[in-house]
Amino acid sequence: MASTDVGVDDAYRAAVVDLLGVLAYGELMAFERLAADAALAPTIDDEAQLAGMAAAEFRHFTRLRDRLVELGADPAQAMAPFRAPLESFHEMTAPSDWLEGLVKAYVGDGIGVDFYREIAEFLDPQTRALVLEVCEDLGQSAFVVDRVRAAIVADPRVEGRLALWARRLVGEALSQAQHVAAEREALTALLIGGAGGHGGMDMTAIGDLLTRLTDEHSRRMQALGLSS
Amino acid sequence: MASTDVGVDDAYRAAVVDLLGVLAYGELMAFERLAADAALAPTIDDEAQLAGMAAAEFRHFTRLRDRLVELGADPAQAMAPFRAPLESFHEMTAPSDWLEGLVKAYVGDGIGVDFYREIAEFLDPQTRALVLEVCEDLGQSAFVVDRVRAAIVADPRVEGRLALWARRLVGEALSQAQHVAAEREALTALLIGGAGGHGGMDMTAIGDLLTRLTDEHSRRMQALGLSS
Repeated sequence: MASTDVGVDDAYRAAVVDLLGVLAYGELMAFERLAADAALAPTIDDEAQLAGMAAAEFRHFTRLRDRLVELGADPAQAMAPFRAPLESFHEMTAPSDWLEGLVKAYVGDGIGVDFYREIAEFLDPQTRALVLEVCEDLGQSAFVVDRVRAAIVADPRVEGRLALWARRLVGEALSQAQHVAAEREALTALLIGGAGGHGGMDMTAIGDLLTRLTDEHSRRMQALGLSS
Repeated sequence: MASTDVGVDDAYRAAVVDLLGVLAYGELMAFERLAADAALAPTIDDEAQLAGMAAAEFRHFTRLRDRLVELGADPAQAMAPFRAPLESFHEMTAPSDWLEGLVKAYVGDGIGVDFYREIAEFLDPQTRALVLEVCEDLGQSAFVVDRVRAAIVADPRVEGRLALWARRLVGEALSQAQHVAAEREALTALLIGGAGGHGGMDMTAIGDLLTRLTDEHSRRMQALGLSS
């Protein structure tokens, strides 16, 4: 194993490789989908903005992949278990227009950052620094708020449709997360049991985490002018 | 006008803004399409490779856009005339599978670099340096050669299909280029007349240019193992 402070704790290492694997493949797929969704933009400036968000996801992908290599893991192998659930998520949530694409980018980035920050607490310092660094670079999606609010002002019926869409996004994300949690024992143990003595959560803590994620999501929905 | 050595020659400036506009929007669309095509990859390593090529296109886009701003031009306005022809090109050449996506990336990047190098000669030093810098960063598509040759070895029928596909790509590109040339007088004048005394080509030189581009394209087809 490469020299890192992940050390010789096999359960912890397996969990971190899983975590970096799902984050890395999540960023790669987000990159592909956001870049394609940019083509739906009504103006070239909007198109360039969403393309810029996509390009940021690719930078995250390379940072996470490099960390996997540092840990002596094969990146493609680490990502492979998460290909099917992430593809399912994106297939079930392909935006049918520009506004749906915007809401997906905003909701996805938001939940992503919240989750990254929560999980960072249970990680070794090096991996934690990387995960927090990726977070800082996200949150470029402020322009989404302007665009969605303006669209609702122009046509109030848009609000109900996008609110429903956001609920579907969260529902699909939770459904895929459950599949992953059921299949990836080391990763789940890191979250609920604190594998390797790096800390972790019991089931009450998981409930609290879900409450915090949901609250933050509701706050973002309000920012967009959508009821959650 | 911002301080640049493009100077006060209005015809030349209009031509350069057109040129940077078409190159910038070309890179932005190539970014979106390549990123989406990465999802067709059979393996995660291949997917990451094509995604990396796409990410490079976004960097070029930002460099070209910044140069437009330096010249005092509105980037979105400079790109707007080229949106329809570039969208038509990509709609007519949406790859139906991974191999078609690879060939499109390789053929497109190749012709792009050749054209950039040819046109660089007629540009002011600052714009020329930028265009050549963008060229250097391209040509990451060597991995495409391996993948396409391996696919032909595995199933020789692939060769005829991909050769036909490459011909279609070039045909569509030429067809859209003709539309652009007919509509953008300043740009065409830069190429055939040397607007602003920065040099340029007569019709014989245009013929020679097309021959050189075609020769290089044939060389790339051979590298892929395809008859052109």
